[in-house]
Amino acid sequence: MTSAASLFTPPATGRTPDPSLAHRRATATVTLLGGSGEPLRDRDVVVRQQQHAFGFGCIGFGLVDHANGASTDPAFDEVFADRWLELFNATTLPFYWGRFEAERGRPDTERLLTAAKWFAERGITVKGHPLVWHTVCAPWLLEMDNAEIERAQRERIRRDVGEFAGVIDTWDAINEAVIMPVFTAEDNGVTRIAHEMGRIATVRMAFEEARAANPGATLLLNDFDMSTAYECLIEGVLEAGVRIDRLGLQSHMHKGYWGEERTLEVLDRFARYNIPIHFTETTLLSGDLMPAHIGDLNDWQVDEWPSTDEGEARQADEVERHYRTLLSHPSVESVNYWGFSDRGMWLNAPGGLLRADGSPKPAYDRLHGLVKGEWWLEPTTLRTDADGRVAFEGFLGDYELAPAGLPATSVRLTVPGAAHLEVQL
Amino acid sequence: MTSAASLFTPPATGRTPDPSLAHRRATATVTLLGGSGEPLRDRDVVVRQQQHAFGFGCIGFGLVDHANGASTDPAFDEVFADRWLELFNATTLPFYWGRFEAERGRPDTERLLTAAKWFAERGITVKGHPLVWHTVCAPWLLEMDNAEIERAQRERIRRDVGEFAGVIDTWDAINEAVIMPVFTAEDNGVTRIAHEMGRIATVRMAFEEARAANPGATLLLNDFDMSTAYECLIEGVLEAGVRIDRLGLQSHMHKGYWGEERTLEVLDRFARYNIPIHFTETTLLSGDLMPAHIGDLNDWQVDEWPSTDEGEARQADEVERHYRTLLSHPSVESVNYWGFSDRGMWLNAPGGLLRADGSPKPAYDRLHGLVKGEWWLEPTTLRTDADGRVAFEGFLGDYELAPAGLPATSVRLTVPGAAHLEVQL
Repeated sequence: MTSAASLFTPPATGRTPDPSLAHRRATATVTLLGGSGEPLRDRDVVVRQQQHAFGFGCIGFGLVDHANGASTDPAFDEVFADRWLELFNATTLPFYWGRFEAERGRPDTERLLTAAKWFAERGITVKGHPLVWHTVCAPWLLEMDNAEIERAQRERIRRDVGEFAGVIDTWDAINEAVIMPVFTAEDNGVTRIAHEMGRIATVRMAFEEARAANPGATLLLNDFDMSTAYECLIEGVLEAGVRIDRLGLQSHMHKGYWGEERTLEVLDRFARYNIPIHFTETTLLSGDLMPAHIGDLNDWQVDEWPSTDEGEARQADEVERHYRTLLSHPSVESVNYWGFSDRGMWLNAPGGLLRADGSPKPAYDRLHGLVKGEWWLEPTTLRTDADGRVAFEGFLGDYELAPAGLPATSVRLTVPGAAHLEVQL
Repeated sequence: MTSAASLFTPPATGRTPDPSLAHRRATATVTLLGGSGEPLRDRDVVVRQQQHAFGFGCIGFGLVDHANGASTDPAFDEVFADRWLELFNATTLPFYWGRFEAERGRPDTERLLTAAKWFAERGITVKGHPLVWHTVCAPWLLEMDNAEIERAQRERIRRDVGEFAGVIDTWDAINEAVIMPVFTAEDNGVTRIAHEMGRIATVRMAFEEARAANPGATLLLNDFDMSTAYECLIEGVLEAGVRIDRLGLQSHMHKGYWGEERTLEVLDRFARYNIPIHFTETTLLSGDLMPAHIGDLNDWQVDEWPSTDEGEARQADEVERHYRTLLSHPSVESVNYWGFSDRGMWLNAPGGLLRADGSPKPAYDRLHGLVKGEWWLEPTTLRTDADGRVAFEGFLGDYELAPAGLPATSVRLTVPGAAHLEVQL
């Protein structure tokens, strides 16, 4: 028995991991018809996958300057951009309040909007990160009382979600709310109001303002805390009637790869809320690991943290294992890798898929071999049968069909299993 | 901004720890009047503390047989009972469903009611523990579907809370809800329904059934998890409009005393909900500590776990430090020690205040020296002044005033600071 407003739902079946990834694939039978409805018989058709339905993402922080024509190293950035676009179909852009609006009333909107459009024009889904967070918080909030901080926070959400609507329609509405009210590393305005309002009212504030500014937006609750604490928060938020569109689970593995067992255990616990899961922040290192005793990863400050041959081989294996595990679970909808090149990587860590010089590590090739190899349909020439049908099997996503002598068309495979489609050209 | 039903309140001030315990003391000025209202001048009055307002509790499991006249070792139990009653004013009795009603429909009501009355008749406040818990759960629930389990659980709460009302008016309504839905050590009916209903609906079930059966009862949410997980649960429960009368914090310190700093940090985080805190389950060992790597304390099974001289000295110090720390915090209302003698102690641990042979350890004497010494007003003869007044200072609680040649009377000090009372004899 739940309250009237509750959005908590009992765990549903159908969330069993399947390493064969059958739940990610469809077998499409497409009937191609000519302009007057007649079957296009015995005709060559080139089928070409255009896009994955699954979100293969990576932060786009390193391309903001490039997208703005303000690169400080154009040669590096061009190769970087090509390799980025070759692999990913989703990105996360930085909206850390303390940087986005370091001076009150002067938000970095134009530069970020240009960057967001650059991605969107290339077919990349863009997410903004985050609207509410206690870290990298606007320093000028510290001069306000709590009522003013809350008002400023609400206005900030409405302004940014509104101004980016249509380009950015996915947001990490709030980040790390589990620790937010008891975060002690530095005084900040967001912790102050979260402590006073409580976590759930703070989460509600983030979601209701973002929803008001962009009712169609996809809003995430995002956290690094994979313990029962995050479960308790989620249940409280759902019970309070706040709709969570997607659950964000971080997985910065600076202290070592979780392994399949722990990853599936985490997925099992969080999948039970019947909310699609985004692995929002994934890092795997190609160098020494961070010591296990470090609590807040930000506490580990080193001058040099090199990528090593041994580390790169390990990283490639772990990237493959992590992505295979995540895709095996039907609840996971996307993975966002946290940093593309070791140049400018968070914490100076060797977590990129490219080295600092921009060259691909084995992990890049390995992930590419999955995303654009094993899980990708190479351009294939088929021939329609007497009823104008071609059949092919592939990962859910968008496919171009180009019949010989006719303009190409596209189909989208959204549901696993057998799909029967008809296209009139 | 919280929802209409929310019971979350912003943290209030006035919760600063004070090692002087001034917030636990009152300075009473009592005017004694004779039958026709005249001041009783220049008269000797013996003031005698009868009871502490603070709850100094201990589990009473070991006295259930004794209270029922069914002791298997009367000599031991009589001494045990005397020492118990000499120190404590509150107890917790066991209502573990799997033992209380091992066979469906045959609850152990009579025996527990006799025991509860035995304590109540001696001025001891009795709490029942717990109404909902996944451990020591009724095994016969496993044959039911979830709807039947929920119905049985609701009926159990109503029945027991109703049948004990007036004798037991304080209940651990639900125990360890943080881990309840993901508890994996053994399959049980309560975890099944908590997993399906979610934690908050499960907590609501416990509180609403207990409240319905005994509207005046004091109901606790009790947990061992002192992390942000418990905070998140509490906030979700309050936001959902479920009233928590008292917050129960366990402190089984089998792996070592927390120390003042951690204890006060925990208190600071949980006191902010403006709900009085009960330290419901305190254990400190007088022998070897449990290794730090043990997760669930129940996993540590040993044949012998002796109390040692060194351990007893350490335990005495730690008991004193722990009680001083807890009393220093204005939010703490009671402490319940978890086991009185090493005989029959949970996990076979040397956590008692008495040894297995019933003799007092130094910790018993140390705690007694506080509760009935430093924090207690010895019988004191005062003399009324010309207005019939006597003044004394003492811990909040009940005091008997016996004027020479007249029947004794009682006053209750409930508010710290100066108290002015008038008593007509």
